[in-house]
Amino acid sequence: MTLAQSVLSGDRLSLARLLTHVENETIEGQQALEALFAHTGQAHLIGVTGAPGTGKSSLVNQVALSFRNLGKRVAIVAIDPSSPFTGGAVLGDRVRMRDLSGDPGVFIRSMASRGSLGGLAQATAGVVQVFDAAGFEIILIETVGAGQSEVDIARLAHTTLVIEAPGLGDDIQAIKAGILEIADILVINKADRPGVESTERALKSMLDLAHPVPKIFQHHGQTMLVDAPGASAPKPLLWMTPIQRTVATDGTGLPGLIESIQAHAEHLRQSGEWLTRERARLEAEFDLSIQQRLVARFRASVPESRLDEMLESIQNRKISPREAVNVLLKGSGV
Amino acid sequence: MTLAQSVLSGDRLSLARLLTHVENETIEGQQALEALFAHTGQAHLIGVTGAPGTGKSSLVNQVALSFRNLGKRVAIVAIDPSSPFTGGAVLGDRVRMRDLSGDPGVFIRSMASRGSLGGLAQATAGVVQVFDAAGFEIILIETVGAGQSEVDIARLAHTTLVIEAPGLGDDIQAIKAGILEIADILVINKADRPGVESTERALKSMLDLAHPVPKIFQHHGQTMLVDAPGASAPKPLLWMTPIQRTVATDGTGLPGLIESIQAHAEHLRQSGEWLTRERARLEAEFDLSIQQRLVARFRASVPESRLDEMLESIQNRKISPREAVNVLLKGSGV
Repeated sequence: MTLAQSVLSGDRLSLARLLTHVENETIEGQQALEALFAHTGQAHLIGVTGAPGTGKSSLVNQVALSFRNLGKRVAIVAIDPSSPFTGGAVLGDRVRMRDLSGDPGVFIRSMASRGSLGGLAQATAGVVQVFDAAGFEIILIETVGAGQSEVDIARLAHTTLVIEAPGLGDDIQAIKAGILEIADILVINKADRPGVESTERALKSMLDLAHPVPKIFQHHGQTMLVDAPGASAPKPLLWMTPIQRTVATDGTGLPGLIESIQAHAEHLRQSGEWLTRERARLEAEFDLSIQQRLVARFRASVPESRLDEMLESIQNRKISPREAVNVLLKGSGV
Repeated sequence: MTLAQSVLSGDRLSLARLLTHVENETIEGQQALEALFAHTGQAHLIGVTGAPGTGKSSLVNQVALSFRNLGKRVAIVAIDPSSPFTGGAVLGDRVRMRDLSGDPGVFIRSMASRGSLGGLAQATAGVVQVFDAAGFEIILIETVGAGQSEVDIARLAHTTLVIEAPGLGDDIQAIKAGILEIADILVINKADRPGVESTERALKSMLDLAHPVPKIFQHHGQTMLVDAPGASAPKPLLWMTPIQRTVATDGTGLPGLIESIQAHAEHLRQSGEWLTRERARLEAEFDLSIQQRLVARFRASVPESRLDEMLESIQNRKISPREAVNVLLKGSGV
């Protein structure tokens, strides 16, 4: 049985092994991903992002538990910027294990930051595909911070949760602005803390600024436009980002949050947006594949010494990087 | 006179125009960058990063003022994740203007987050090159957050400052770990706040864990190993990340911070590390150029309809992205 087959058959150890292969970008990992591709496209991918101090990890655990109680198999992919020497990823897993350990319907994977630009987003996409093929119906992708890479990773998801908390630092405001645009659901966690009202007001006014609300009926973020009189059911049209208050430490607000997540999935399916997002994601993956293949072929066609020579000339400012590429492409025959 | 020539002659308006071209990746911007390349490589690039709430922007302003007082021309590139609709970038500039306005030796440029992966890092590299060619001796690159993109942008710099502050949120600790590795100088800003001792202790122990300190003499972070008796001067060997306390709002600690920055530049030059970093940066730029050129050539060789067909098959899980690339490369003749 191949590694891919073992994963499809539900073997947990094979799953763990394959995830490591995919993270390390081995040939074996690539082959298994190929074999599994036809089995992907079933899972609901949920991105969870937000600034430090918002209690993201606890909330992700609670969301996972809630979906488990609904009978769903849940995978958590935690993007952890901790470096190897602090063991941050390992510690994170251990803390989570207390709540979710021993449950075969849950699988948690922490991923450390990668050296190369885009490397993390790519490895994450691979890991998510493996979980998808392995039959995890809910995949939670948790990122720390609000940088470009978090936005890129959020783009993987069907539904993106942005977590806020009352009373965080002074330039949080600036960060919110950039991240608001990717939020399908806004969560104010630690909602038992002082300042929750003003946080909610601030978020609401930012949302209003971004998306003026038409006169329509809202239910858990799903915006319904009541059709002509006698219409059988209201139709979903636009998604108006809802704001959900939660207290992850005691589970307050979780049922409402889960309903919103499910309403968003429903909205995506009915509006056709699910397929649009799916397509955009696959297109990005396809583009990356093209790029990698072309670069590899080019590298193989140019001797290392010639590349070194060019770099030397670039460093001495005799030739610009673009000119150097021109020269190499002419000579390479690729 | 070409745009590049106007910029070299010191015309501020042309500089502003060229920066916009470079940010928008226009042909005119590309051509000017080509023309300016030979004039780059002079500036000291200083990356400044850290979590929200650390007072980064005020500190960057103070560092800029300090270098102005030393007679240096200073550019600030502020990477701002704010979205267009909040006008965060504009506001940021206006606040800064109070301190630095009217000084022709200072130029501030805010850059908004970009849509594409790596887009921001690339645009930032271009903007930095323009400032370098235009004769700005100190270029401060300020990023918000601690994501992968911040790390990528920090890699542009010769010297990276990581800003902390006492008493920030609970998962700050995890972020620190990842970002510590890129820090050449650690700054505890808002050092007049309670908790500064424990923040410094925590940072010190993390540094010790990462880099055990050999028995050597330290001066402003520059580690000297005192040679055999009678040696004329101690030689720089390793850089031991120093921790500097500052209070940006009143300038406390700034002289020490500036000395450390200068000591780091000196260390880089004497150890040969300056050239190594320069080379790594140019190599990355070169790689990106190759990649973009190859992809553009490939795209031009494949009809749009053929690409759409392939994407359709990928979406239907009939073919994987990698297989699709194989098929296209065989047929493309590229």
